[in-house]
Amino acid sequence: MSKGERTRSAILDRATDLASQIGLTGLTIGHLADDLRLSKSGLFAHFRSKATLQIRVLEHAAAKVVEQVVRPGVREARGAARLRALFERWLAWDTAPSQLGGCVFAQAASELDDRTGPVRDRLVQLQREWIGVLGTSVRLGVAAGRFRPDADAEQFAQDLYGVMLAFHHAWRLLGDPQAEHRARRAFAALLDGIRAPGADANVPMAGGAS
Amino acid sequence: MSKGERTRSAILDRATDLASQIGLTGLTIGHLADDLRLSKSGLFAHFRSKATLQIRVLEHAAAKVVEQVVRPGVREARGAARLRALFERWLAWDTAPSQLGGCVFAQAASELDDRTGPVRDRLVQLQREWIGVLGTSVRLGVAAGRFRPDADAEQFAQDLYGVMLAFHHAWRLLGDPQAEHRARRAFAALLDGIRAPGADANVPMAGGAS
Repeated sequence: MSKGERTRSAILDRATDLASQIGLTGLTIGHLADDLRLSKSGLFAHFRSKATLQIRVLEHAAAKVVEQVVRPGVREARGAARLRALFERWLAWDTAPSQLGGCVFAQAASELDDRTGPVRDRLVQLQREWIGVLGTSVRLGVAAGRFRPDADAEQFAQDLYGVMLAFHHAWRLLGDPQAEHRARRAFAALLDGIRAPGADANVPMAGGAS
Repeated sequence: MSKGERTRSAILDRATDLASQIGLTGLTIGHLADDLRLSKSGLFAHFRSKATLQIRVLEHAAAKVVEQVVRPGVREARGAARLRALFERWLAWDTAPSQLGGCVFAQAASELDDRTGPVRDRLVQLQREWIGVLGTSVRLGVAAGRFRPDADAEQFAQDLYGVMLAFHHAWRLLGDPQAEHRARRAFAALLDGIRAPGADANVPMAGGAS
C-alpha cells in the first residue's frame, strides 16, 4: 500500500466509524473534515459529493467484510465448517471495537430503506452480494453432500440475517448479556435444520456455548 | 374520545409517520408544525421539548401495537394459536400503509442504540415490554402443556424478533418478493421447535404459505 492509499484508507476508517455512530446519511464532507482536522476543499476534491463519500464508506466497509469474514470463511471446508466460520467472523465484525456505533450496514439499511438514489442502490447491491455468499455456501454444502438436498439456501440466508439483526438489537439496544449466547444457539438450530443425516452433526460450535 | 384527544391522536399519528420516514431523532417540533401547518408555539406549549415529542411518538406507537397486535393476540388460546396471532398481526403492523417509512421501532432502535438519554430509555422499556409479551406467551403455552417443558421463552422471543427484522430488511431494503413467505416459514420452524409432542401440530398457518 502506498502512502496515499494508507491515508485514504485511514480517512475511510474514520468515516465508517463516524457513519456507524451518527448515521450514514448524516455523514458529510464538512463533518469528516472537521473531525479529522483536514481541509474541506481537499476532501471535497477527493470525494466530490456527499453521496460519493457515503458510497465510498460502504465500499470500504464491504472490502473489510471480504477481508475479515468472507475470505477466511471460504477457506474452510464446504458445509457446516464454512458456515460456522462465516457466522463467527460476522459476529466478531459486528462487535468489533473499531465500529463504535455498530455495524455500518445495519445502521445504513434502516436509514436508507425508504429513500431512493445511488447510495441506497449501492447498499442494496453490497447487501445482496453478502447474502449471496451465505446462499452459495449453503448450495455448495448441498453439492458436497453435507446439507440436505432440499435445503433452501435463500431461506437459510434470510434466517441467518435475522439471527444477526436480533443479536445486534438485543446486545446494542437492550444490553442483554445473553444475546450472543442465544445467537449461537439460533445459528446451531438453523444448521441442524439443513444438515444431511449423518453429516458432521457433533462438531462443537466455535466459541462454545456456555 | 374528546375532540382534543382526537386532535392529539391525529397529530401523533402524523408525527409517527414522519418519524418512520426521516428518523425519530430527526423529528422536531418545528418540523411537525411545518408539516401540519400548525403554530410552532402551540405545539411547543403542548410537547415542551423535542425529547418529549419523541417519547410521545414512541408511546403512541406502542399503544397502537397493544391495540392492534397484543390485545387481539392474547384473546387466542394459549400456545401456538396465540403466538401465531401475535406474529401475523405484527407482520400486518410492520407492513401497514399508515407507516410509510416502516415500523417506527425498528427505525428508532437503529438510531438510538448508541445514544443515551430519556428517549433511548423509553424505547428500551417499550421494546422490553413487547419482548416480554412474546416470552410470556411461550411460558403460558408451556404451562398449558402445548409447548415443551424445556422451551426457552427468551430464546424464542429473540429468535422471533430476528425473523421480523430479517423480513423488514429483505422486504423494505432489498425489495425481495419472497421475504414474507420466508418469514412465515421461519416462524413455523421456530414454533415446531417448541411444540409439545402431539400438540396441535397440524393447524395450518394463518395467511397460508404459497
